[in-house]
Amino acid sequence: MMKANQQRYWDALMELGTITDEALPYTRRSFSETFLKGRQWITARMEQLGMAVHVDAAGNLVGRLEGADKNSGVIAVGSHSDTVPGGGRFDGVAGVVAGLECVASLQERNIKLKHTLEVIDFLAEEPSEWGQSCIGSRGMSGYLSDDILRSAHPQTGEQLADAIVRMGGKPDNLIKRDDIKAFFEIHIEQGCVLENEATPIGVVSGIVGIIRVRLAFRGQAAHAGTTPMNMRSDALLAAAQTACDIRQCVAQMASETPEHYVVATCGQFNVKPNASNVVPGFAEISVEMRSDHRPSMEALHKQLEQIAARAADTYQVTLLSCDTVTDTQPVVCAPALMTHIRDASDSLGLPYKVMPSGAGHDAAFLSHISPSAMIFVPSKEGKSHCAHEWTSAEELGQGVSVLIDAIERFDATAKN
Amino acid sequence: MMKANQQRYWDALMELGTITDEALPYTRRSFSETFLKGRQWITARMEQLGMAVHVDAAGNLVGRLEGADKNSGVIAVGSHSDTVPGGGRFDGVAGVVAGLECVASLQERNIKLKHTLEVIDFLAEEPSEWGQSCIGSRGMSGYLSDDILRSAHPQTGEQLADAIVRMGGKPDNLIKRDDIKAFFEIHIEQGCVLENEATPIGVVSGIVGIIRVRLAFRGQAAHAGTTPMNMRSDALLAAAQTACDIRQCVAQMASETPEHYVVATCGQFNVKPNASNVVPGFAEISVEMRSDHRPSMEALHKQLEQIAARAADTYQVTLLSCDTVTDTQPVVCAPALMTHIRDASDSLGLPYKVMPSGAGHDAAFLSHISPSAMIFVPSKEGKSHCAHEWTSAEELGQGVSVLIDAIERFDATAKN
Repeated sequence: MMKANQQRYWDALMELGTITDEALPYTRRSFSETFLKGRQWITARMEQLGMAVHVDAAGNLVGRLEGADKNSGVIAVGSHSDTVPGGGRFDGVAGVVAGLECVASLQERNIKLKHTLEVIDFLAEEPSEWGQSCIGSRGMSGYLSDDILRSAHPQTGEQLADAIVRMGGKPDNLIKRDDIKAFFEIHIEQGCVLENEATPIGVVSGIVGIIRVRLAFRGQAAHAGTTPMNMRSDALLAAAQTACDIRQCVAQMASETPEHYVVATCGQFNVKPNASNVVPGFAEISVEMRSDHRPSMEALHKQLEQIAARAADTYQVTLLSCDTVTDTQPVVCAPALMTHIRDASDSLGLPYKVMPSGAGHDAAFLSHISPSAMIFVPSKEGKSHCAHEWTSAEELGQGVSVLIDAIERFDATAKN
Repeated sequence: MMKANQQRYWDALMELGTITDEALPYTRRSFSETFLKGRQWITARMEQLGMAVHVDAAGNLVGRLEGADKNSGVIAVGSHSDTVPGGGRFDGVAGVVAGLECVASLQERNIKLKHTLEVIDFLAEEPSEWGQSCIGSRGMSGYLSDDILRSAHPQTGEQLADAIVRMGGKPDNLIKRDDIKAFFEIHIEQGCVLENEATPIGVVSGIVGIIRVRLAFRGQAAHAGTTPMNMRSDALLAAAQTACDIRQCVAQMASETPEHYVVATCGQFNVKPNASNVVPGFAEISVEMRSDHRPSMEALHKQLEQIAARAADTYQVTLLSCDTVTDTQPVVCAPALMTHIRDASDSLGLPYKVMPSGAGHDAAFLSHISPSAMIFVPSKEGKSHCAHEWTSAEELGQGVSVLIDAIERFDATAKN
């Protein structure tokens, strides 16, 4: 017996999806007018459900339903309502609207939680023009530094702090919350593991850390006809070899230690002069490594440096730079909350898979101030950040039912 | 004893170099006003030397000095005075001005050749806006088809035939010359072989053929965090593997059959979406293969197709296309003329190296209507098609002296 009203949840998601930049569905960029219209819709829903609504210091929209026991603290549920340009109707949005469905479901079953329940729409989870993601969840957990707040919009020059004020926040009064006892985020998987394994529920074990490296190779541009092979300094080949070798390396690591999730991606590849009859004198690539296991990330990073140095040597080019541009720690989800999610799935007869999240989420920041956990629902063909992003109404309903059941289980453990 | 006046030759080159688009030295684009100014300067020099000057049907500027024996036919010397945008003062130009120095040297030594001597400035050797190179030498040798003549300038719409008329040509009256008994072209090497081996003279054995292939791989763009390695269709990796493997293949071929010149270059590499956190769903590369030995080119081409198919298979992507966009035959220089060049070098005490030309030249088209040969002089650091292109006055003087001596040697073999 599902606890969520699948149709009500779906209708709400579709309705929120209609609030979009008309020229580019489905777009609600953080800090935009369209984004604020979306928040008006969410606010109205929260108020209809009897919640007290406010925007916190970091610009997060918070709906609050007081619990039976003031001393129990807060259970928070949430995600984000902003989207990438031309994004979909589910990434982030599903987790915010799920919070509304939780409240509706509890109320129609006359269940009053001991904990206060907060539904949170975190501000600007997607990368914004200020170059940062997860602005709101950073702000709530003590990771929104003055440096970040003072950064300027590249076009308008507006400081991020001022933009947060425009959203109703008070960035001068940021506080690190310590009253949240459990944070739950339901999110589309954005990958194709659940779909491929025909499993409706993902119990997230942790959120990967990311090391992102930018490598530049300098060779010597030369005539592709008159320069014999042994006189070349071909920067493209050094970059191509590095991309292939790091792929080889991560595949071997994955087969040797299958208990750790680890991926590596060369996503950017630029060469100069990029002409068919010129040996490329310059090549720049990005290599991103993600894992739920910090030692694996670090081992891979070290191997990347060795691979790039060897490739430079092989092709007689200079490894100009091998700079780390991002380095975040993996986060482990709270085992107790994961247990509630597994028990909830079992009780609803829904198969689940314990799996890491390869993408970053607000829950990664929340985990620094509260036990945190995530539920994944399948993404059709793994598609995300595009208009074709899709999860069926049934899958979404199942996910929210697990969420509600897990919240009730956690609430039942409260001391009073 | 050198036969050329090194200083006179150098001064003439530098003087012609001053006729350039002011904003971008050294530029004389074919069909431009600046190009015509350069030709006025060349025409004046030819006339000072007592040559009869005309523009032929294909738009080539021809200076003609009648020989002692009308029946001996023509010895032609030449290259091109047009440049790439921002090119140098030597590529092409050196070969045209060398013709003037030949005439001056013969005259001051009171030598009258039996053959008529023509100095030719071929029209538009560099790729022009009409997408073709070697317009003039094609026209003289029967390779300027109606299709090419009717092609339109991408911006102005002017047909190539009309542009040739603007240059003084009569493209309706093209004839394939059959009166040229020997063609000599002196050119900068545009590579670094002569410089590296400290050898002043290159005796060109042949001009490479070129097969240029454009390959496109289609995979599946996917989230770089949430897509496990074994579920990826990474188009970038297939392209990178192809670039590395064809390099490996050509290196092996070069070591197994060192008597053939063979090079392969991946010069262009473009991926989409080219973002650090997205597995690339599309990659397109160019691979260019050049050799003086047709079977080597064809074998390499076949291997490229196999390499690309195997890479597509390895990375679970589709090889969308593997299209040949250029395919030209290698050309062998005339052995008798090569012998004259070697003998000339020996008699002047100048070491030489027999070597292929990895770049295309007007001589490649002339070889279809006349025994043809080329002399290379060193290029500093192999640089070409840039303002830093450089060959010293001494090296240029040595090259022209060999040219003059070779012409005299060929003239001495005339039957009458």
